[in-house]
Amino acid sequence: MGNNTPLVQLSHGSGGYMMHRLIRDYFAPAFDLKSLNDSAVIDNLPNGRLAVTTDSYVISPYFFPGGDIGLLAVCGTVNDLSMAGAKPLYLTSGFIIEEGFPLDHLKRILDSMQAISREIGVKIIAGDTKVVERGKGDGIFINTAGIGVIENGIDISPRNIRPGDKVILSGSIGNHGMSVMAQRSGISFEPQLCSDVRPLNSLVDVMLRETKKIHAMRDPTRGGIATTLKEFANESGYCIIVEEEAIEVLPAVRGACELLGLDPLYVANEGALIAIVDKDIAEILVEKMKTTKTGERAAIIGEVVETPQQTVLFKTAIGGARIIDMLSGEQLPRIC
Amino acid sequence: MGNNTPLVQLSHGSGGYMMHRLIRDYFAPAFDLKSLNDSAVIDNLPNGRLAVTTDSYVISPYFFPGGDIGLLAVCGTVNDLSMAGAKPLYLTSGFIIEEGFPLDHLKRILDSMQAISREIGVKIIAGDTKVVERGKGDGIFINTAGIGVIENGIDISPRNIRPGDKVILSGSIGNHGMSVMAQRSGISFEPQLCSDVRPLNSLVDVMLRETKKIHAMRDPTRGGIATTLKEFANESGYCIIVEEEAIEVLPAVRGACELLGLDPLYVANEGALIAIVDKDIAEILVEKMKTTKTGERAAIIGEVVETPQQTVLFKTAIGGARIIDMLSGEQLPRIC
Repeated sequence: MGNNTPLVQLSHGSGGYMMHRLIRDYFAPAFDLKSLNDSAVIDNLPNGRLAVTTDSYVISPYFFPGGDIGLLAVCGTVNDLSMAGAKPLYLTSGFIIEEGFPLDHLKRILDSMQAISREIGVKIIAGDTKVVERGKGDGIFINTAGIGVIENGIDISPRNIRPGDKVILSGSIGNHGMSVMAQRSGISFEPQLCSDVRPLNSLVDVMLRETKKIHAMRDPTRGGIATTLKEFANESGYCIIVEEEAIEVLPAVRGACELLGLDPLYVANEGALIAIVDKDIAEILVEKMKTTKTGERAAIIGEVVETPQQTVLFKTAIGGARIIDMLSGEQLPRIC
Repeated sequence: MGNNTPLVQLSHGSGGYMMHRLIRDYFAPAFDLKSLNDSAVIDNLPNGRLAVTTDSYVISPYFFPGGDIGLLAVCGTVNDLSMAGAKPLYLTSGFIIEEGFPLDHLKRILDSMQAISREIGVKIIAGDTKVVERGKGDGIFINTAGIGVIENGIDISPRNIRPGDKVILSGSIGNHGMSVMAQRSGISFEPQLCSDVRPLNSLVDVMLRETKKIHAMRDPTRGGIATTLKEFANESGYCIIVEEEAIEVLPAVRGACELLGLDPLYVANEGALIAIVDKDIAEILVEKMKTTKTGERAAIIGEVVETPQQTVLFKTAIGGARIIDMLSGEQLPRIC
């Protein structure tokens, strides 16, 4: 890197002039900050219950095929709100930046956050920046907290899962985790792997316009779909049976998983969702989902049965069945 | 440290079993998490406008005289909400932990967050944990975002500042910054320095019960009272004149500042506030503040005049005056 590349300095986190200039020149143009110092004040909140969530993003590398840490920090938190059936409205954003971080990388990340938050229609209303010394961080970490509103009549929670319910998966799995893994390992795959990171709010909006009989919904990020399904089984007390062949894994992802010895069921996704829904509306809901870009590969992949309790069973193409557990140990650190 | 001290491992951030156990055994007992996975849902929010804020805390060392990073992460965000005149109600909390962090330190920090949030009456309703590899973080970083409600009739903003207004400071300055600095430098002072980190919500509650004529309010953290006063002068367009001798600096803080070559006006505070208020209610308001523990040293320290615009003037005991600017450069990194 040339000597002329401006870098983040410790004084950018001091509270003084340098920080005011950093906020004025970089953060304020990208966000909808109500004030550079105070709390943001929200005057008119739509009716409904409030959904609140938070996530920190520490992904390495912070630029990856298909996205960057800023896109992820907006989508990840928007998706968490969407999984509760909430319309995402406001985000806060806290940055922890390592001294020496290139300001043009910060600019790219902020541009990315601005573009996606405008597309979603969510406002970033409060922010904070801290700078840590070289060697005490790793480039950039971003926390986002999100606030959304849940319309009356929507109640999405694993406690609503009932035997007979159908399990819907919105798209192919493993794309995010394997694209980050491939970039990190330096191995290139053909066709190129690409993260699925994207907002799920409009897909959820289409789904909720079709039916309120969505019992549970979650986006399978860290731990992959296996972990999410096991959480649903544990929290509902029932058994989830999944047809393994109904789950789509793109050839490039399958190839990369085989080469690196990973199971795509445990690989992180950032643009897919699993919904557990009333059996009577499952098929028509999948058809509706398929009319959207995000849900065009949606499919029913399984169903809920009484027993064995708190169990996830994967039925294979040749008629076998295996019990699926949560991820144990660490498959791939800093995937999000 | 003995071999038997349990440490945070990368798998504690994996999304799988280890993370579920960490949340169940450490975070869930300390917080009011509505669910271990989903968004928190708030059913009944009091009437009023919503105040929203966020801050990341990267203080080094994370245990310091008078507090720890957990206490700071709760108080700092509660105080930001309080400065907007909001009653703090809910917090989210995102942890970025370095691999190898002692679990008993995490426990102490969570206990501290639990104790202070109960005392304040604020609920920590959503959380997130990420683990980064050794050498890619620095022990523990915590982000908190806060939600509060502003009662109708309260409007606190620097744009309300008017010539004639009085400037109130709630207590002595420099305690937080100098206690952290002393601990970091390894120098011991007599009497011992102690951070002023504490919640300001009940002091603000007392103030707002007395009067709605509080025009602006801010807690002078990074950059100290000089930076906060300069922000008020810039944002209002007026001049703030302060009597330097009205500002209390404890002898130990003054001594430490002299030894280390620092100006207490620029040193961070975590339990003090500056309020700019209508002149007619200033004196009675200070008397009310003095009835509280947090405000017992409250005093009028200056006033707002028309000109010179956007200027802060400090009048010294011997009759001189100096222009005070914001902190430039970095006085003390990672103070909060």
